[in-house]
Amino acid sequence: MTQVDFVAVDWGTSSFRAWAMGRDGSVVARQSSDQGMGKLAPLDFASALEAALTRMGVALSVPVVACGMVGAAQGWVEAPYLSIETPAAWFGQGAVKAPHAKRDVFILPGLKQTGPANVMRGEETQIAGFLQKQPEFSGVLCLPGTHAKWVQVDRGRIQQFRTAMTGEVFGLIAGHSVLRHSMGQGGWDATAFEAAVHAALETPEIVSTELFEIRADGLLTGADACKARSRLSGLLIGSELAATRDLWDGQSIQLIGAPELTRNYAQALSCAGAMAKGYDATELTLAGLRAAAIHLLREPA
Amino acid sequence: MTQVDFVAVDWGTSSFRAWAMGRDGSVVARQSSDQGMGKLAPLDFASALEAALTRMGVALSVPVVACGMVGAAQGWVEAPYLSIETPAAWFGQGAVKAPHAKRDVFILPGLKQTGPANVMRGEETQIAGFLQKQPEFSGVLCLPGTHAKWVQVDRGRIQQFRTAMTGEVFGLIAGHSVLRHSMGQGGWDATAFEAAVHAALETPEIVSTELFEIRADGLLTGADACKARSRLSGLLIGSELAATRDLWDGQSIQLIGAPELTRNYAQALSCAGAMAKGYDATELTLAGLRAAAIHLLREPA
Repeated sequence: MTQVDFVAVDWGTSSFRAWAMGRDGSVVARQSSDQGMGKLAPLDFASALEAALTRMGVALSVPVVACGMVGAAQGWVEAPYLSIETPAAWFGQGAVKAPHAKRDVFILPGLKQTGPANVMRGEETQIAGFLQKQPEFSGVLCLPGTHAKWVQVDRGRIQQFRTAMTGEVFGLIAGHSVLRHSMGQGGWDATAFEAAVHAALETPEIVSTELFEIRADGLLTGADACKARSRLSGLLIGSELAATRDLWDGQSIQLIGAPELTRNYAQALSCAGAMAKGYDATELTLAGLRAAAIHLLREPA
Repeated sequence: MTQVDFVAVDWGTSSFRAWAMGRDGSVVARQSSDQGMGKLAPLDFASALEAALTRMGVALSVPVVACGMVGAAQGWVEAPYLSIETPAAWFGQGAVKAPHAKRDVFILPGLKQTGPANVMRGEETQIAGFLQKQPEFSGVLCLPGTHAKWVQVDRGRIQQFRTAMTGEVFGLIAGHSVLRHSMGQGGWDATAFEAAVHAALETPEIVSTELFEIRADGLLTGADACKARSRLSGLLIGSELAATRDLWDGQSIQLIGAPELTRNYAQALSCAGAMAKGYDATELTLAGLRAAAIHLLREPA
């Protein structure tokens, strides 16, 4: 086995992902599970981590650098939010050492904005990964997901950000509201998606009454489940774009996320006349964790 | 026991309510339970009904008239939707006799609108109850609830209606999203509610990003749970009002619902400069079921 330098961990609400990283930045081994923060009590994190590292064959001497909800108040240990004014290269300085750990486990802090109030945990590491490669970047990053983040950056410094709960609201409505009877699991109806994005962008208030029309259409005209799902997605993403118009209008947006999701956002932005470029979130998470690890593990204290 | 003329039943997705009605329109006995359509398979309805009627001491010779989701495709038996053009006095004609019943059980149909697609089940009976007393009414009825209905009526005839899933979306977000950590169960912050109604009415698109601010405010400033709940309610009701502005602007709205809910809607409409008058939904449901019963049980076939 190649020598493992550190283990990078992305520990969110609903999932755990770990990568054993070689000194050259290569991934030597990986593990993932559904053992997210939401399933663990504070005293469970240490054993959940060690079980995964044992499966990966990582020695006890290897340290861990983790980001995400593991550092929330309900996580392993709270890593207090840093201000958005903190330069990305300093994020590692806010790391907190996890208690009751069998090895060194550094948990990275999230970011907070006070006016208006907003927070992120995990996305700041992707942003740090992005800025590693483009340290003087100016523009807008969009990180779609359970809670989509829209981040305005000026010469490598975060100016402001906004959050849309689009992914979470989609999951609740598609899976738990009366619309669940009309929703398919697979497929994609690009025409229905684009029509819904346009409708929500042009008249954002209609979303409130259009949602039930998806159900009524299913009942009265037998509209197919794939169309219903794409229409719901379009209404919610269109609504998010209406709320963030000042950030993307006339801009080229950098989309950071899972490929399927960034594709849908790129399609929606294209409907709105904006350009977008996609980046893989996992790659940027690893780059951000590696930057923090270099700071935490190499620099003199 | 006063002679029971018929039993009125309001059988929704999540609740069952029955009233033994005397010939003079008085309520002789009542029962309610959580045995809604959502908990019952088609063959369970007959025994659930008889168990309640036994507790009420209603003889087998007494017929039942029921409205609500009991007549949906997933209910006891489907009572196909009538067109909104059907006069309210004729709703009883669309009733379907329930199979496998130990007595006569008439299930009332819902209403459908085809352009744009929309449906209701249960509310049509409240509307029929309202029109019993004001048969030549012209104006707008709003029936807030899990799925709020906005109904435009002209001289006693329904012209069009719209549905907002406000109650269901509120329940999902307050109870199941990340906002659940910030929500209180009780209390009411009228100032926070009104500010949110105004914000959503003036700039409907902000709702998409304001939702998460409720959570961030809780985390960063310790905003209280009662304020958070009132703000969420105000954003969603304000959003509904933005979507129905053409129906209430410059009108006096007739609000039909549970007293607490109609009070909140009246407060929101007042913020928007509209007048509202409240009616108790249960009273109108009983009036509508009684009108149907008179038609079904007295008129020659």
